[in-house]
Amino acid sequence: MPTISVKGVEMPSSPIRKLVPFAEKAKKDGKKIYHLNIGQPDIETPSNVLNKLKNIDDKVIAYSNSVGTIGLREEVKKYFSQINISVETENIVVTTGGSEALLFGFLSCFNPEDEIIIPEPFYANYNGFATAAGITVKTITSKMENGFALPPISSIEKLITNKTKGILICNPGNPTGTVYTKEELLELKTIVQQRDLFLFADEVYREFCYDGLEHTSVLSFNDLNENVILIDSISKRYSMCGSRIGVLISKNKEVIQAVTKFAQARLSPPTVSQILAEEAFKTPNTYINTVISEYQTRRDIVVDRLSKMKGVKTAKPTGAFYTVAELPVNDTDEFCQWLLESFSHKNETVMMAPASGFYSNPELGKKQVRIAYVLNNNDLNKAMDCLEEALKQYNA
Amino acid sequence: MPTISVKGVEMPSSPIRKLVPFAEKAKKDGKKIYHLNIGQPDIETPSNVLNKLKNIDDKVIAYSNSVGTIGLREEVKKYFSQINISVETENIVVTTGGSEALLFGFLSCFNPEDEIIIPEPFYANYNGFATAAGITVKTITSKMENGFALPPISSIEKLITNKTKGILICNPGNPTGTVYTKEELLELKTIVQQRDLFLFADEVYREFCYDGLEHTSVLSFNDLNENVILIDSISKRYSMCGSRIGVLISKNKEVIQAVTKFAQARLSPPTVSQILAEEAFKTPNTYINTVISEYQTRRDIVVDRLSKMKGVKTAKPTGAFYTVAELPVNDTDEFCQWLLESFSHKNETVMMAPASGFYSNPELGKKQVRIAYVLNNNDLNKAMDCLEEALKQYNA
Repeated sequence: MPTISVKGVEMPSSPIRKLVPFAEKAKKDGKKIYHLNIGQPDIETPSNVLNKLKNIDDKVIAYSNSVGTIGLREEVKKYFSQINISVETENIVVTTGGSEALLFGFLSCFNPEDEIIIPEPFYANYNGFATAAGITVKTITSKMENGFALPPISSIEKLITNKTKGILICNPGNPTGTVYTKEELLELKTIVQQRDLFLFADEVYREFCYDGLEHTSVLSFNDLNENVILIDSISKRYSMCGSRIGVLISKNKEVIQAVTKFAQARLSPPTVSQILAEEAFKTPNTYINTVISEYQTRRDIVVDRLSKMKGVKTAKPTGAFYTVAELPVNDTDEFCQWLLESFSHKNETVMMAPASGFYSNPELGKKQVRIAYVLNNNDLNKAMDCLEEALKQYNA
Repeated sequence: MPTISVKGVEMPSSPIRKLVPFAEKAKKDGKKIYHLNIGQPDIETPSNVLNKLKNIDDKVIAYSNSVGTIGLREEVKKYFSQINISVETENIVVTTGGSEALLFGFLSCFNPEDEIIIPEPFYANYNGFATAAGITVKTITSKMENGFALPPISSIEKLITNKTKGILICNPGNPTGTVYTKEELLELKTIVQQRDLFLFADEVYREFCYDGLEHTSVLSFNDLNENVILIDSISKRYSMCGSRIGVLISKNKEVIQAVTKFAQARLSPPTVSQILAEEAFKTPNTYINTVISEYQTRRDIVVDRLSKMKGVKTAKPTGAFYTVAELPVNDTDEFCQWLLESFSHKNETVMMAPASGFYSNPELGKKQVRIAYVLNNNDLNKAMDCLEEALKQYNA
């Protein structure tokens, strides 16, 4: 029997995945589960997109251009011009989700064993793409106490070696829900320029900023044109996670050239999804405004409920649709499993993501969970009822 | 300005890509181009699939299971049982096209610098996935004289080093159109077992066998269960190239476990495409039978026309929808460019794929082209008129 690859062995599996069999068992047993464990919104896809889906008259579902249809890339360009960022269609490569954008970006910019610095806690799948590309992740830890703000630049500087080739930020942050300030990003810019690094910015939650906060995109820093690789996606913005349409944007021509070759090898992104994505960008702004205000209400509910639970701490998130909460338990991997396996409140329970998978050192997340507030207010309150009751029982 | 990766530089770009600007210019100038350069069939997607597309009632285009929906995997299982091959849903990972199946398979099975043996001429994008995974391609050359049959096993054996970890075949072959016999495959099986290699088999053209020839899938060799990684796709079978739905199938549990982790990192394959793919497998057999007989007629036209052109040679292909032809020119890269740039016959011309990109040593393909017979009989004849006339002019 031939042996599989080292990457195949070392490829990380997130702690959420380990919970899935327990969730399936609970469901089978008739228990209702409130899913706060994954960033899959319950929000409807815009009606114009759903209408478009019923009106596609293609007779052959054919390959498209490897870098994406020109119609979609023009919509992406228009979208950015509306937020005062100028990009050309040739700066844009349409990818199969933000995921593929990250993979192609890593493969195009980094050599095996190159190092990339990421503030943690961070989206666990970054580890997967790093493993696939053979690169090493170095982390700087951000703290709940100051709202998971960008750690001081001096702490980033300390991590830089001759193998450091890039920095990756997620803004607004998954799992933290933190929106970086312009000042923080300007500090980051300085070090990126001084050390001539690639700056990967995952901005898929760009619109999801609350309390009137304004988002700053690193794509607006024109003196970083050769450094910035922007990762974007329609998944969250238009509640179209399943369409798998993302984009990689860069003004660095060599990067786009390399990414284009990876895109050509896999032929093209899905055609129907691109037709729908092009339509999605034509969605009236009222849609996203309603969605954002809905999420702000949900955030308020979650933060309010958590603040009233004994021993629970959370930073009030300013963006995305996640919050990281510290719970009065020793091991959230065990607690989250117990919630599914052994607990029920009115025959219901709640599923959350243990935070151990969001840190390079799992111990740092042992008392934390990520809560995705992707349910309506009523369900969210019931989920919080479950958590509140569960903590009482678990600690009794 | 930070430098891009070595892979980004070395990532191959196929010779067809270099022709694209010339094709665009020709089109702009009002010249009609017969596209025999790409495996994009003109055949309509089955009507049941197009109907399904208009009747998807999802309100949220949501993520699916990372390894594909259970409904689709059950259809794949059923499809294989109809050709007397037993696979279970847990042997199947749905991927974003056969392309992603190859990438995940390579990353899961091979370490950087491992060697994989591929009979050439081969599908140029295998080079891209090998580059992405950092593995080395070693080739054995098959010859037009004997219909691009599998080269003798002794020649494969000679290539095996302590770094050799696998063999990749494409059956029926792109670009050769060759269907391997059961005897050839049994010989291959022996060496795979003796050396304990992974055997990757790209069988996306499985149904496309002519003259009553029967296809043998390596998945039917039960004593190769731990070795075989099958790559399949609905792209050609149901003329759904743009849906980007493929599958990786293996009975080797470690391989599936590793592939699953790569699949989880990128979340899921496109959801609408999977709904359509599930429907595609329910297409009545009359569809594929009609398609195959159509392609056999097309093959006959192309081979007949080529055989009447002075100095042109081709092996009569027995499968897929390609043939490799040797032309009486010194450099088909130049000739194919000339066809687009300088030639026209009744204001029409033909685009073909120079074969240099299908060989490790481009010189071996310098006199060859790949012709994809993906047009209707009338257009195919007109395309052949162009080629015939072009060869006369080019050599005058």
